[in-house]
Amino acid sequence: MGEFDLIRDYFRGVGAQRSDVLVGVGDDGAVLQPPDSRNLVSVMDTLVESIHFPVNSPARSVGHRSLAVNLSDIAAMGAEPAWASLSLSMPHLDNDWLADFAAGFTECAEAHGVRLVGGDTVSGPLVVTVHVTGHVDADTHTLRKGASPGDRIYVTGTLGDAAAGLRAMTRGDGHSFLIERFLYPTPRVTLGMRTCKLVSAAIDISDGLGQDLGHLLSASEVGAKVALENLPMSSVLQNGFAPDEARYLALCGGDDYELCVTVSPEHAEEFEEVCDSCAVRCQCIGVIDDTSGLNFTLDGKPHAVNVYGHDHFATES
Amino acid sequence: MGEFDLIRDYFRGVGAQRSDVLVGVGDDGAVLQPPDSRNLVSVMDTLVESIHFPVNSPARSVGHRSLAVNLSDIAAMGAEPAWASLSLSMPHLDNDWLADFAAGFTECAEAHGVRLVGGDTVSGPLVVTVHVTGHVDADTHTLRKGASPGDRIYVTGTLGDAAAGLRAMTRGDGHSFLIERFLYPTPRVTLGMRTCKLVSAAIDISDGLGQDLGHLLSASEVGAKVALENLPMSSVLQNGFAPDEARYLALCGGDDYELCVTVSPEHAEEFEEVCDSCAVRCQCIGVIDDTSGLNFTLDGKPHAVNVYGHDHFATES
Repeated sequence: MGEFDLIRDYFRGVGAQRSDVLVGVGDDGAVLQPPDSRNLVSVMDTLVESIHFPVNSPARSVGHRSLAVNLSDIAAMGAEPAWASLSLSMPHLDNDWLADFAAGFTECAEAHGVRLVGGDTVSGPLVVTVHVTGHVDADTHTLRKGASPGDRIYVTGTLGDAAAGLRAMTRGDGHSFLIERFLYPTPRVTLGMRTCKLVSAAIDISDGLGQDLGHLLSASEVGAKVALENLPMSSVLQNGFAPDEARYLALCGGDDYELCVTVSPEHAEEFEEVCDSCAVRCQCIGVIDDTSGLNFTLDGKPHAVNVYGHDHFATES
Repeated sequence: MGEFDLIRDYFRGVGAQRSDVLVGVGDDGAVLQPPDSRNLVSVMDTLVESIHFPVNSPARSVGHRSLAVNLSDIAAMGAEPAWASLSLSMPHLDNDWLADFAAGFTECAEAHGVRLVGGDTVSGPLVVTVHVTGHVDADTHTLRKGASPGDRIYVTGTLGDAAAGLRAMTRGDGHSFLIERFLYPTPRVTLGMRTCKLVSAAIDISDGLGQDLGHLLSASEVGAKVALENLPMSSVLQNGFAPDEARYLALCGGDDYELCVTVSPEHAEEFEEVCDSCAVRCQCIGVIDDTSGLNFTLDGKPHAVNVYGHDHFATES
């Protein structure tokens, strides 16, 4: 089978039906109808085998994650995802692998109303890049900047599960709940869309809360105080690790793809109500202040933490 | 230097200034203002080291080509390029390499009015994926389908130079003109935009004329007769290779990034005039007919050619 048959067989008709896709997969490009009176949000993320996921990860997970990590960025921007493009570099043609990859990608696309509109399939190392375009009402997108002193800091879901799951996969043991949290993250798309007018700043947690909240603080030119005992952790994580280790995973582990947002006190109640109505747990972990940097407390006392998140190339500096 | 500093230093402010970029590089996503009453064209292509360009290719060329190959798809669709996203996976942080890569990308972006609005930089094998969004008036985009019997088949520029240049690079000899044609292809963006209402079908020549014209014919459900003596070839190619070999490179060599379009007889004169006004050579190489497949003549007589273009994975079938 040639490259072109391959693309046709696996990647035509993937994702939700959308009337704004005038020409989809199969030509030199897709033709898309932009939304009336809305802006576009553009995101692109890459997953590299053995860097972003272990060798021999399930193909269905690679397909799911390649889209989910992008939808998480879309969620952080408060946008509604619409169109995806997929670049798949893979070392050889394995029909079973491709079918599973496409199934994972398709499940995630359909769950979020996304249509695959184009991309590229090439021979090479296993590297997956996805670009997603979303729609957002003018002036309602959320950015990393915008947090003000006094704003509450919330995170969705639970933290540290994915990092614990990745560790479990590598070691060949561990709880399946944690592994599933790594393999099949849930981007908080609906919540992002429904809360975009309520939050002052937002970022998704891909590299670890400590590092990603740090980016939000830098962009907003503010500081923060975070109470470590408030970090939301699953019971599986808490039961499987010593308290210090669980807290480290929650603070510094990446790949959770939860949202970290700041909310002014007057919007906090409504924000929490929307989270409830979306059936997404949210936890206030601290408050923005006018210091510089990120300061932690544990049970009310200052607590020094060396925040380490995932920074490619950082060891070469 | 960390990943985030890296992105900031090299990829902020790259490309043309555009007032429709409301939020550019540096947040979870870009915020873009779509054009009024126009559609969007979305393209994405990937270059893998040692597959799409030789190991140790100049970084400036890799940066240029990663965008140019996408702009060639935009040109084939008849669209005006606007926004680019860049995913760069590279094995280590080399500031000189990055500066050269960014320079090549920037030159190509500025030449075509494109702004870099986001993307990703990760550690991994050298793989570059670019996504470009363009704008096009409703119902003026060009597709591979649409060619009718009697339409003339035109190609822009000259063919085979890039394939000869790639061969020269690999062998360490050859004419610098040919090597430059491989390293720095010129996407036919202005011509594509200005002729989109005149052509009935279009494709860009990335995998070789024979293979790419074959896609156009399949999509249009027509056949074609091509006169091999009419394939446009540079004097450098003709002087450097035996006639059969030069013709083989022109027909089957990839990486030219010229356009192959079909034009009805009543539009042919105007099409040629627009090519002249764009200072782009165009050559009529044959005619669409109602047979199936691609048939060749040489000096008026049928001539069998085994068309081989670049098809990843094809050897595994």
